Amino acid sequence: MGSSFGRIFKLTTWGESHGPALGVVVEGCPAGVALDLADIQHELDRRRVGQSKVTSPRNERDQAELLSGVFEGVTTGAPISLITYNRDVDSSKYENLRDVFRPGHADYTYWAKYGHRDHRGGGRSSARETWGRVAAGAIARKILASVGVEVYGFTREIGGIAMERFERDQIERNLVRCPDPEAAERMVTAITTAKDEQDSLGGIVEARATGVPPGLGEPTFDKLDALIGQAMLSIPAVKGVELGGGFAVVRSRGSAANDAFYLDDGRVRTRTNNAGGSLGGLSSGEELIVRVAVKPTSSVARPQETIDMTMQPRTILVEGRHDPSVVPRAVPVVEAMLAIVLADLLLLNRAARIDWPAG
Amino acid sequence: MGSSFGRIFKLTTWGESHGPALGVVVEGCPAGVALDLADIQHELDRRRVGQSKVTSPRNERDQAELLSGVFEGVTTGAPISLITYNRDVDSSKYENLRDVFRPGHADYTYWAKYGHRDHRGGGRSSARETWGRVAAGAIARKILASVGVEVYGFTREIGGIAMERFERDQIERNLVRCPDPEAAERMVTAITTAKDEQDSLGGIVEARATGVPPGLGEPTFDKLDALIGQAMLSIPAVKGVELGGGFAVVRSRGSAANDAFYLDDGRVRTRTNNAGGSLGGLSSGEELIVRVAVKPTSSVARPQETIDMTMQPRTILVEGRHDPSVVPRAVPVVEAMLAIVLADLLLLNRAARIDWPAG
Amino acid sequence: MGSSFGRIFKLTTWGESHGPALGVVVEGCPAGVALDLADIQHELDRRRVGQSKVTSPRNERDQAELLSGVFEGVTTGAPISLITYNRDVDSSKYENLRDVFRPGHADYTYWAKYGHRDHRGGGRSSARETWGRVAAGAIARKILASVGVEVYGFTREIGGIAMERFERDQIERNLVRCPDPEAAERMVTAITTAKDEQDSLGGIVEARATGVPPGLGEPTFDKLDALIGQAMLSIPAVKGVELGGGFAVVRSRGSAANDAFYLDDGRVRTRTNNAGGSLGGLSSGEELIVRVAVKPTSSVARPQETIDMTMQPRTILVEGRHDPSVVPRAVPVVEAMLAIVLADLLLLNRAARIDWPAG
Amino acid sequence: MGSSFGRIFKLTTWGESHGPALGVVVEGCPAGVALDLADIQHELDRRRVGQSKVTSPRNERDQAELLSGVFEGVTTGAPISLITYNRDVDSSKYENLRDVFRPGHADYTYWAKYGHRDHRGGGRSSARETWGRVAAGAIARKILASVGVEVYGFTREIGGIAMERFERDQIERNLVRCPDPEAAERMVTAITTAKDEQDSLGGIVEARATGVPPGLGEPTFDKLDALIGQAMLSIPAVKGVELGGGFAVVRSRGSAANDAFYLDDGRVRTRTNNAGGSLGGLSSGEELIVRVAVKPTSSVARPQETIDMTMQPRTILVEGRHDPSVVPRAVPVVEAMLAIVLADLLLLNRAARIDWPAG
Repeated sequence: MGSSFGRIFKLTTWGESHGPALGVVVEGCPAGVALDLADIQHELDRRRVGQSKVTSPRNERDQAELLSGVFEGVTTGAPISLITYNRDVDSSKYENLRDVFRPGHADYTYWAKYGHRDHRGGGRSSARETWGRVAAGAIARKILASVGVEVYGFTREIGGIAMERFERDQIERNLVRCPDPEAAERMVTAITTAKDEQDSLGGIVEARATGVPPGLGEPTFDKLDALIGQAMLSIPAVKGVELGGGFAVVRSRGSAANDAFYLDDGRVRTRTNNAGGSLGGLSSGEELIVRVAVKPTSSVARPQETIDMTMQPRTILVEGRHDPSVVPRAVPVVEAMLAIVLADLLLLNRAARIDWPAG
Repeated sequence: MGSSFGRIFKLTTWGESHGPALGVVVEGCPAGVALDLADIQHELDRRRVGQSKVTSPRNERDQAELLSGVFEGVTTGAPISLITYNRDVDSSKYENLRDVFRPGHADYTYWAKYGHRDHRGGGRSSARETWGRVAAGAIARKILASVGVEVYGFTREIGGIAMERFERDQIERNLVRCPDPEAAERMVTAITTAKDEQDSLGGIVEARATGVPPGLGEPTFDKLDALIGQAMLSIPAVKGVELGGGFAVVRSRGSAANDAFYLDDGRVRTRTNNAGGSLGGLSSGEELIVRVAVKPTSSVARPQETIDMTMQPRTILVEGRHDPSVVPRAVPVVEAMLAIVLADLLLLNRAARIDWPAG
Repeated sequence: MGSSFGRIFKLTTWGESHGPALGVVVEGCPAGVALDLADIQHELDRRRVGQSKVTSPRNERDQAELLSGVFEGVTTGAPISLITYNRDVDSSKYENLRDVFRPGHADYTYWAKYGHRDHRGGGRSSARETWGRVAAGAIARKILASVGVEVYGFTREIGGIAMERFERDQIERNLVRCPDPEAAERMVTAITTAKDEQDSLGGIVEARATGVPPGLGEPTFDKLDALIGQAMLSIPAVKGVELGGGFAVVRSRGSAANDAFYLDDGRVRTRTNNAGGSLGGLSSGEELIVRVAVKPTSSVARPQETIDMTMQPRTILVEGRHDPSVVPRAVPVVEAMLAIVLADLLLLNRAARIDWPAG
Repeated sequence: MGSSFGRIFKLTTWGESHGPALGVVVEGCPAGVALDLADIQHELDRRRVGQSKVTSPRNERDQAELLSGVFEGVTTGAPISLITYNRDVDSSKYENLRDVFRPGHADYTYWAKYGHRDHRGGGRSSARETWGRVAAGAIARKILASVGVEVYGFTREIGGIAMERFERDQIERNLVRCPDPEAAERMVTAITTAKDEQDSLGGIVEARATGVPPGLGEPTFDKLDALIGQAMLSIPAVKGVELGGGFAVVRSRGSAANDAFYLDDGRVRTRTNNAGGSLGGLSSGEELIVRVAVKPTSSVARPQETIDMTMQPRTILVEGRHDPSVVPRAVPVVEAMLAIVLADLLLLNRAARIDWPAG
């Protein structure tokens, strides 16, 4: 259970880190969307390992095959199946982890739940699963683009080093996807230092969506905020999520926290955006702002105290190929999940009014 | 759409703030649960308005009627319907808000989505909707109790005043539900001051669950963390959620953030609990720890800039009866949502293994 | 589980035959639908008991209260809650059935499943539950009317007496809702005879929908046919369902069974309608034709062999107030379910194309 | 939408008749099920084309690759992905059908819905999609086997020729899967005759399940009958479904139609089985009996009247490789859907009681 997400635009991911292949099935993509495999591959490449010295050296090309749902370059309304075969699998480093639980990982909890697990590379719990999310996110972006919505993301903070200025065009120009090139440089140094010390770093990723029409979200339990909450906290290593003012806004007063409405050239705007683009769980038309907390990578090549499946104490040292910080590679995953939530709510919104206007 | 939550233990809430009644239908409660209306009313009373000087003076008894699903004191497996009629409705204060959008509220976004709205007391977007969540949460608690799981919550922070010590038995002994009685006193003062100044305060609520068996949660999108994310961010006024170390843990290193496993009297435990009781999206058996950010109440009786439905600028002053801080009354709602998520996942977990052990 | 139906337009029914009340919550009704309680009550009255000598003498007014989701006569997009309190409950006749399983009823199977049941009047398994379906169906009809779809139904056959001609305006003019007034007369006689003989009759109900736009239905598992199949076989006492040619068409050849396409005044039509208005699981634009098999009422006041909860053989005689044939009262229920399926698919269809045309 | 089926045991099929591949993702299979690809392939081979003179000459090996969810021969609880690449695709015969609507097929309705379609071999609407259902059904059977449930099916009738006796061991010994070898011979002759005459035949398939524990099914809308209704009417070419007495039972009286309970060696049984193994929508413990009506194949190589996408009348002759009767190959599909419904309800049933007994 739980491998599907979405109400109308619905993805189902499958596959294990060291299994033969990984994939995603996307249901509910409307017919008539021009879809090119290159659009999808572009996003997948942004998430790929082996990109630089700050990512895992595992070498996967992550090349997608498009197996259904598109005919002559256009979606047909049928489910879209995308698959990638694992190429550079090296399970040897995991053989000694077969019967032991790595701290910070899902080893123990999967074993407790299922009584049986694929221990190789984390199996199903591996972040490698996010391949399918990014592929689906690329499709979601095409739907969003049709109404002028754009999603982008960046690194706010890594290892305690926070960005101090925002230059959007800098984001993809450095290894950590930080809009502040100087902070980016310090982040890279921090990561390589941590790596040299057999350790790892966490950080904060922010994603934004512009051009979001007002009214997206479904009251009560499928609020925009709520679905973003589910989407973000379903990403491996994410331990927190906030919108707009988030945890900081709790220290302000209502009179300051409220965003005043005004009319800007015929469009309803707010003077501030503490709400982060969502009011009462529906999009307000302001920029949507989401931040997620990414914990430091759990795999560290240091001796750690743990137990094994026979309930004996053990000391382990987790080898294998890992990202010293997953934050930079989490950026496209966070973006993808935001795009998926928005595309789903956009399609769902068409049923909100009996006289729903086309578009 | 969006008024239902849960996969097996599923609730559907209905009703508007100033409509004739509010209610909830709970599906998927197993047969055989001893259920007394008093158990439910006890939780509803904790959420009730008019409790003290720090809550709204609206006077609702919130008395639940139990209309189905229970026979001779025991659940039958049929849907459980609970209802409360609104008694102290005063819509007069809202008449002047009929065509204007209150800042910080859902007025504008509902109007943009639906083209038609019940403006009285926020209609469907009112926090009054949470009545049904608390009622359902009381049922969820009974299910959880059958396996030894207990959920409780408290106020960590209000208006910048944070608790400094934790005495669990103090929580329900002060008006703000803070486990630190001295901090509680300062919080009460801060709230009454803000109220006198026609303003409002936000804060942080924490909820915990003890006795959670390992393995609850469904990998990938229905992770324990993910469903908690959805549940919490579906609560009105909540703008952020985190588990365990949350946003703070991003500044530690992997070697420090990982929780080492050890065996304690035959039970698998971790030395620390930065994970907040969830590993890989499944419960670890450690205490589950969730924190939510509650924004300051949006209704403040100060002049605010806004626009109306004809797109004209307006200045409004929101009267009506409001909580100067919803944080204390949010505590039972946060608890309820956590209990609901856990009960749902507990029942779902029975299908995880072909040889699932009874209990 | 299982008390909800629908993807967008979703109803949840609750309540037991002899409980305090029954109700339904309808989610996903679009905002902007003019909805009058009288529209709903009209349909409920068609389903009501105590209408004539061919129905149960239980006297329920079945009056609906509308508790949410409608403001100033128009739907708001919020869930619509409808309730009716049971007035004429007489559980005394059921006291002797507390520990015994009535043949043909759900007594044994509920007990086997839940280990605990409300035995009074069938509890949750009673056809009284269909009150909520008819109420929801009345709302669905309003949605359908906005695009020119109309649903109606009638009795084709009772106790082996089949209609021989079709006069639509006769349907509601006789006690059995048969479009053939002479057959209707014979059906009434057959029912009263069976009743006098402490026995009961079954029959066939047909429902049709006109004005259905082509393309409703979702390929593969949510085909129009498939959802109609679920909807109809969820009605108590229904044991079969067929569309168009149904079971009879299996004896024809493909060349005869295929409905040839032609153009009729600019509209795509078929020369015949063996498909019953559905091709490949999507509506074709032709009249939708559905037939359901309704078994004879299981409650008969004759001695029947059975066992009790202690696994002892028993002879029982089922008293209480029952319909000697539920067929006439099943007509509005079958109509309601068809309307619900169509309204749901109509709303869902808006997400089928990126350039979906309004209407 | 609509490519998924099931609540706990959930399958999602994808792929087009002439696309590169077809597949299915099965979620919710419990961990711990011993699963061998050979078990799956065995069922797929029963459904395969090119088996004999009564099936389509298209030559597909339909070989399944197992890509996830199984580790060391046992399911892990992760989604199971199965795929088969199309090998013998010949789209040339469909080129002339690009802009024309075949009678009896989904061509027109897909075009009306989506405005864009893959016309090759019926695209998504092709019965080739059922590959994934049969694969998933093989997994469902393994789950069912663990509690002693067995599903089997057979042909009751083809082209008006009905079986007259039942010898279970004869079913798989003739080309049409009929338990009456003499009727089978006449059916084969009828099919080959129809084929020679460029025509096609329909028929009736029956599926049964033995060993079903009482209580499977969820009251109200997810009744066993209702889910069987959806499952069966989602199969291409099926136009009707009935349980037990079905359409025939409507002509009997309640006193005769009721199945009397008795105790047989400690087990609750019924003297007759007009209910077809389901009472009140829950399994009764008696054999489950389902029949479906399969229309004659729509593709017939005779001139047929139709229109094209420019709304011009046309005469077409549908070439390509088709089954003159799909009935024999429908048998494993009907069985698969029944197994899937039962496995899903079996797993769901574990949440029905707080004290659910393991097994």
